Order: sequence, then structure tokens, then C-alpha cells
Amino acid sequence: MNFKTLVIPAIDAAAGGGAAERQQRLTKPLGAMGDLETLSVRIAGMTANPLPRLERKAVFLMAADHGVCAEGVSPYPQSVTPQMVLNFLNQGAAINVLTRQTGAEVIVTDIGVAHDFEPGLAIHRRKIARGTANIAVGPAMSAAQLDQALTVGYEIAENAFENGVRLAATGEMGIGNTTPSAALTAVLTGLPAAEVTGRGTGIDDAGLARKIAVIERAIARNRPNRADPFDMLMKLGGFEIAGMTGVTLAAAANRIPLVMDGLISTVAAALAVEINPGVRDYLIAGHQSVEIGHARLLEKLGLEPLLRLRLRVGEGTGAALAFALIDAALNILRDMATFAEANVSGKEEN
Amino acid sequence: MNFKTLVIPAIDAAAGGGAAERQQRLTKPLGAMGDLETLSVRIAGMTANPLPRLERKAVFLMAADHGVCAEGVSPYPQSVTPQMVLNFLNQGAAINVLTRQTGAEVIVTDIGVAHDFEPGLAIHRRKIARGTANIAVGPAMSAAQLDQALTVGYEIAENAFENGVRLAATGEMGIGNTTPSAALTAVLTGLPAAEVTGRGTGIDDAGLARKIAVIERAIARNRPNRADPFDMLMKLGGFEIAGMTGVTLAAAANRIPLVMDGLISTVAAALAVEINPGVRDYLIAGHQSVEIGHARLLEKLGLEPLLRLRLRVGEGTGAALAFALIDAALNILRDMATFAEANVSGKEEN
Repeated sequence: MNFKTLVIPAIDAAAGGGAAERQQRLTKPLGAMGDLETLSVRIAGMTANPLPRLERKAVFLMAADHGVCAEGVSPYPQSVTPQMVLNFLNQGAAINVLTRQTGAEVIVTDIGVAHDFEPGLAIHRRKIARGTANIAVGPAMSAAQLDQALTVGYEIAENAFENGVRLAATGEMGIGNTTPSAALTAVLTGLPAAEVTGRGTGIDDAGLARKIAVIERAIARNRPNRADPFDMLMKLGGFEIAGMTGVTLAAAANRIPLVMDGLISTVAAALAVEINPGVRDYLIAGHQSVEIGHARLLEKLGLEPLLRLRLRVGEGTGAALAFALIDAALNILRDMATFAEANVSGKEEN
Repeated sequence: MNFKTLVIPAIDAAAGGGAAERQQRLTKPLGAMGDLETLSVRIAGMTANPLPRLERKAVFLMAADHGVCAEGVSPYPQSVTPQMVLNFLNQGAAINVLTRQTGAEVIVTDIGVAHDFEPGLAIHRRKIARGTANIAVGPAMSAAQLDQALTVGYEIAENAFENGVRLAATGEMGIGNTTPSAALTAVLTGLPAAEVTGRGTGIDDAGLARKIAVIERAIARNRPNRADPFDMLMKLGGFEIAGMTGVTLAAAANRIPLVMDGLISTVAAALAVEINPGVRDYLIAGHQSVEIGHARLLEKLGLEPLLRLRLRVGEGTGAALAFALIDAALNILRDMATFAEANVSGKEEN
């Protein structure tokens, strides 16, 4: 499909205004629910509903492998990617525990894992290749593969929305994927690799220096065009990153709020914003991770995270934790009594 | 009862160690659940159980009025205190909405509201007086009233623990109560009133200046003894503040984790720590409010809040939101698969 001509609807200011007006009549000091009030007004605008309820929630969990692992950028072997996918399907991973708590679905897609999964698993089988090419040597993928990855994410998300999902989050699994993410963050923010590269799942000082050098080489070798998000994704991305960009575009196009997780999910969303700036209004920052590039990207997007818990799991875990706060924000808006209903006096005039 | 000789059990280091060891075997990078891992280990130590589950939760919501309202420190009339108590009983307030979401109980106590509630309400009727005396003129209460307030909180909490409550939070309602709380914070931290006094439910600049002057007068007039928490509470406190101090002491004495809410709840907990330093190990900071004294008090206690959402409602709302994160921390500890169970490879040795 042609992502360049995608239409993203504008925020519904009247619905947002309706929510803001109701917040003033609820039995609490003006503005006293803080960030949760702001959030409820934003979601009303996104969904064009002054009293939104987002019952069905889903984490779109995209898994893929990365050729750049050949450079030794992760302390974990690449076999952990499929092993963790099976862990997701067996409900044993962190994201399963957290989504059970808030009643959200986990929709798992193999969009490029270097492993052949056995038949019969509850997984979307949309493998584009057995991992990307090594970005330290050349582009991660071809233009056709990029279009395929964006389309996979878009289609899987749109299908879920047609089936009733009303709140979306992106999550990922892919050993090595903080390396392409930091490379894309460096290009997106214009900052040196050293200022946006973190320790991922836990590399030591020597590993971090090697990772930064690999990212510098990937950028120098590929010369991504900062003005062209498709070029950036093709040269430095990953299949799961592009897939999450597709999910993010589908959410915004369908007025579905999209909760970002950590660095990798936010990189994918930031690239969706580069493709269409209207996407930004549909983004909610769930959690700010310890990956140092993440704070820079959120600043660039002008979004403050709901949570800062020093998580560095990925999988959508930070977004899934934020689901409870989003529910709280909307429950407050819908279910609290107004001053009139509860016969509570307002502020006295001086 | 004699609160000076209360025994607070030490944290169970073996249970905490058991939880920490299990966290290392779960299918995620080492330490990757960040603050939620630390929290799970702390709760294991508090409860002396390496795999704790805290199903029944309660917010102890204490309501009382304040003589200092005569000084014009709040923009709301004192009648809002009983009106909001009725709102709690009718399930219409923010705390009702938030506790419904996590399945927690709200236990409401009239410990000193300047109103006679009609019979038949689901409220603990333990009124000590119809509000405190005006702290700008003299002590808030007598020594006997203080002992009574501490005992009310202690007894109501201990009764709930006997009935199966395993996670506690303190919350309050009392028009004017950020004034005694800021006064107590100034004495506890040794900081000038101007540095720990905020706008409460929303006073303007002139109101803030008046509030600071009232607090300075209250401290100068009463000369509270910084070394004696009972003297501080008697002279500058409130019935609901002392009641929450009693709840906090009861929680620690019974190995029940106690989640603090905003400034007022944290002042009550900080005074419990002054009464017995062992209490500190049982405290969880739920939310850091916008009241400027709150950050100073949390620093003094050495506790970092789970949430920072600019709430300023009180009622226990920040603590109730944190319940979902505490559930998440304990669900992760109990329910995630280990590397061995899921056949996932660990970190490679270099």
C-alpha cells in the first residue's frame, strides 16, 4: 500500500473539549487528577468521543532477528529470539504476566525470526526473511522488504481494530535490536551515537564502546537520508521496527490511541511521525526506559512518559503497565460523581 | 496503648534474598524489571515470604476538620469535608473509582469531622472532636486526644488485618489539612515554611503568602519539640493525620506493607518513623504529589515514588494507583517462567 498518501484524521477538538468540561464538574479540586486528566482529554480527542471507554486492548508484539548481531553487539545468542517467542506463546514472559493483569491481548508476529517455527502455534507467520542484513556492512533490507514489513504491521493492526481492539501498544523481541534503534535515534535526533546508545540487555564498557563504533560505521556506510523515513528504515531498521511503524500508522489512521513502550517501539513511532506528522497526536508515552536515547526521542516528540520505572525488558511491558493508568484516567472521567450529583460545594469566591 | 514501646519486627532478609534469587532466574535480562524488582524484594522482606501475594488491599481513609480554617487557608468551605465523606460512601469520589479498578476496599473513618452524620452509614464513628483547635493560636489537640487518635487508627487497621487485609494505604479528607501538614513538614525537615508549603487544593499567590504566614505563626506560637513526635503531632497535627500515623504503626507492627499517598499521608508516616525508626522499612511511596514539601519528605525518608502524575486529590488516590504496580511486581515474581522452565538461553560468557 502507499504509506505516503495515508490519511490521518485530525484530533476531534469538540470531543476533547467535552471531556475537559466534564473534568471541571467532577468532585475534586480543579485539575487535581494531573496528568491523568490531560490524558483523558487527549484520548477523547483521538477517539472523537467525549466519554471514551477502551475495553479491548492489544499489544502488537513483533519479533525478528538482526544481521548486526555478527558484530557482537548483544551478550545473548540470537537463538534467544525464537526461544522468547515460544515463551510468549506459553504465557511465561513478562508481557504475558502484565497483560493478564489488565486483560489485554498479546498478538505475536514472526516478521523475520531466523528460525522455522513448528506448525500449529498461535502466531502470525509473516516472516520476510531470516533476519535483516548486517547494517554495519550495508542496508538492513531492500525497499520491497521494507514495504512488506510496513504492510504486515498495518494489516495485522487493522484486522485487530476491525475485530474490536480499541487501545493498541507496540512491543518487540529481537536480540540485537537496540543497535539499529540507537542508530535510527542518532539520525532522527542528529546526536552523536555515543549520546544515544545504551547497554541494551546489559553489555559491559568494552561492549558499549564496540556497539557505538558499529553504529557509527552503519551510519557512515549507509548514509541514510534524514529527510526520508523510508530510506532510514530500509538502511538502518529491522523488520520488527518497520512492522511496529506499520502498526502505529494503522492506529492513527483508525483513531486508535497507540501506547509506546521503550526505545525500540518509540523509534518505530517516531518514524511513523516522520512519514505523517499527524500520527504524533495519537501517541501515548507509556514508560521511559533506561536506554539513554529514549529520553531524547520522547523530548523530540514532545511527549512525557506516564511511568519511569527503570524497566529494560521491551516486549511491550512498559506500555502494558501504562494500560492500568489509561483505564484509571478514563474511569475517573466516566464514573466519578459531579459536584451537582453529589451535592458537594465548589470553591468559594473571594 | 503505649506507642513508645511498640515492637516493629525486622525485615526478613532470607525471604528478601529468596525473592532476589528467583528474579535472577526469570526469563528477562538481569535486573530488567527495574524498580518493580526492587519492590518485590522489599515486599518479600516485609512479609517474610519469598513469594508474597497481597490479594486483599485497603485504603484507610480518615476524615477530620481543622480549626486553622478560621485563618482562610483553603478556598473550599469546611462543609466540603462531610460532603465528600458522603461522596465516598456513595462511591462517587476519585478514590472509589480507582479502588474499584484494583479491587481494593475503602475503609472510611470519621475521626473528627465538624458534622453529625446520620445513622446507618458504612463509616467508623470514632469522632474525637468536631475538628481540631486553631494551630495559629495554640495546640491542635490535647495529649489525651492525640493518644485517642493514634489508637483509633491503630485499632481500625489491626482489625482489618485480622480480617485478611494484606496491603494497606492511608488516605485523608479534611479541608485545610495541607496547612498542618506543611507545618509538620517544616519542623520535620528543618526547612523554612516557604520552602515546604504548596497551594493545596488551589489557592492564589495572596492565599499562599497568607498560608505561609499562618504556618510560621503556628510554629512560633506552639514551639513544637523536634525530638518528640508526639509533641509535634499534638501541637501542629490533625485528627486524621494522627489517625494515619496509627494506621502506619499498626501496618509495620503486623508486617503489612503500607503505601503512602501524598503529602498528608507521608507526614503521618514520617511521624510514625520518628516514633519508631523500624517503620521506615514497611513504607512504599506510591505517588509524589505537586505539593512541594512532599519531595523533601520523601528524600528524608530515602524513598522514591512509584508514580509522578501531578495528582493533588488526596483521599489515597496516588496510593490506589500504585496498587496496580505492586500487583504487577508480585505477579512478575510469582508467575513468570524461569530460564530453565522455558528453555531460554542465558547470557553468553565472553
